[in-house]
Amino acid sequence: MARSRPTEPSPKALVSFTHCLADAAAKVTLKHFRKAGDVSDKGGGTYDPVTEGDRGAERAIVKLIAATYPEHGIVGEEFGNRNETARFRWVIDPIDGTRAFIMGQPLWGTLIGLLDEDRTVLGMMAQPFTGERYWASAAGAVWRRDGGASRALKTRSVHNLGEAVLTSTDPAMFSGADKEAFARLSSSVRMTRFGGDCYNYCLLAAGFIDVIVEVDLKPYDIVALIPIIERAGGVVTTWDGAPATSGGRIVASGNRRLHDATLKLLARK
Amino acid sequence: MARSRPTEPSPKALVSFTHCLADAAAKVTLKHFRKAGDVSDKGGGTYDPVTEGDRGAERAIVKLIAATYPEHGIVGEEFGNRNETARFRWVIDPIDGTRAFIMGQPLWGTLIGLLDEDRTVLGMMAQPFTGERYWASAAGAVWRRDGGASRALKTRSVHNLGEAVLTSTDPAMFSGADKEAFARLSSSVRMTRFGGDCYNYCLLAAGFIDVIVEVDLKPYDIVALIPIIERAGGVVTTWDGAPATSGGRIVASGNRRLHDATLKLLARK
Repeated sequence: MARSRPTEPSPKALVSFTHCLADAAAKVTLKHFRKAGDVSDKGGGTYDPVTEGDRGAERAIVKLIAATYPEHGIVGEEFGNRNETARFRWVIDPIDGTRAFIMGQPLWGTLIGLLDEDRTVLGMMAQPFTGERYWASAAGAVWRRDGGASRALKTRSVHNLGEAVLTSTDPAMFSGADKEAFARLSSSVRMTRFGGDCYNYCLLAAGFIDVIVEVDLKPYDIVALIPIIERAGGVVTTWDGAPATSGGRIVASGNRRLHDATLKLLARK
Repeated sequence: MARSRPTEPSPKALVSFTHCLADAAAKVTLKHFRKAGDVSDKGGGTYDPVTEGDRGAERAIVKLIAATYPEHGIVGEEFGNRNETARFRWVIDPIDGTRAFIMGQPLWGTLIGLLDEDRTVLGMMAQPFTGERYWASAAGAVWRRDGGASRALKTRSVHNLGEAVLTSTDPAMFSGADKEAFARLSSSVRMTRFGGDCYNYCLLAAGFIDVIVEVDLKPYDIVALIPIIERAGGVVTTWDGAPATSGGRIVASGNRRLHDATLKLLARK
């Protein structure tokens, strides 16, 4: 008797499965985090903790997806795409924030997103060193630490740029007109802070950061974070207001009013 | 019968006592971390988590020191100094990295240093959210997490700026000639990253960051970190090579060769 499989897995089953993927990734990433050794000893047998961690974690995730949902597609950073035309596609970044990872800062995360056609139906950011998970599905956006009770994520209601906390991973990512636009925005907010990667988008969902502006993001840098931001009450689009799913120049804000003000200021010539 | 007290407490007793101070501070800081509420609701009853956490934690620390070592001096951020001419002076920053604290990033720390005349004999950085403690005394520099086994801290042997990872808490701290000097240094290293506060100095001691350059530091921002850096094999001075104890423009490096190269590049006109 052939095993029957529902064509559309239940949302609850998918969330549980995503936690399993994050568990599998954590085993690999934590083995390499803060194990850099001495980078000055470069030679034939160079140990690159990021590459090792990235590849190993993605391999672990891909293996689990292929075993459980062989009909699903996968968009990964390290090994490219498979089943690209599938209805359900997993979008994976095993270590988002490689510079933070290299430096030992616990601000990197494993990003796991799930697309149903062009809609992001599930997203998770797992930070295994702090034991935190931020995730969102149709049921809402939540945070949990070390398997404890989960708490709802909610952006805060800062509506004016003058009161906003702005972040971006690295000032060096901006050049030309983008650099000028970011400077314009930065001079309009209460406080600007650099560093943070995926962790900052989750802190925006949790109500501690108001605006994040970045450029050159890949789909796997942002897809998993979209539902976390949106289900917490935030907005995330490109600088032009288009869907963030394809990456590029990205703005995330705690609410629509602040988002509109940010887009307007970035666009001003 | 009067209780006798040794005029010079044993180094071991002082380390244990410093852990008690960090425990007392953690109870207060964690109560306020990520409890910002809605900052847009500003009014008469404004809740400022940093100020509340800072003051409460310093109060807890000062109370313990006064009860245990009443003859010792205290240099604190929030309540100023007491017994300034004492041989032993505690230098306290209950929340170093207030911006990280505000944003929910676990990169802030409670800094506790102890001066014997002008020599820093003990220093600790406690990050209660991650459960980490980095500290140093005559016995060496160590790291411990959640009360687990302690591990020795050791800077890595990157000797050339071209291979170095440079960090600084905020690019906006530099202006004028300092800004030019930092840009010169930044263009000579492998990677520059902003954000991190006291946490980065500990990651330098742990061998994941090679150079940190900052300005406008107060004594309580750096005193506790000096022995952690030095006992791990690193060097920390002002940009002019003077002792870092008084704060100001500070450079920390993983080793002497790298430090000399950094000072030279910063000083070049």
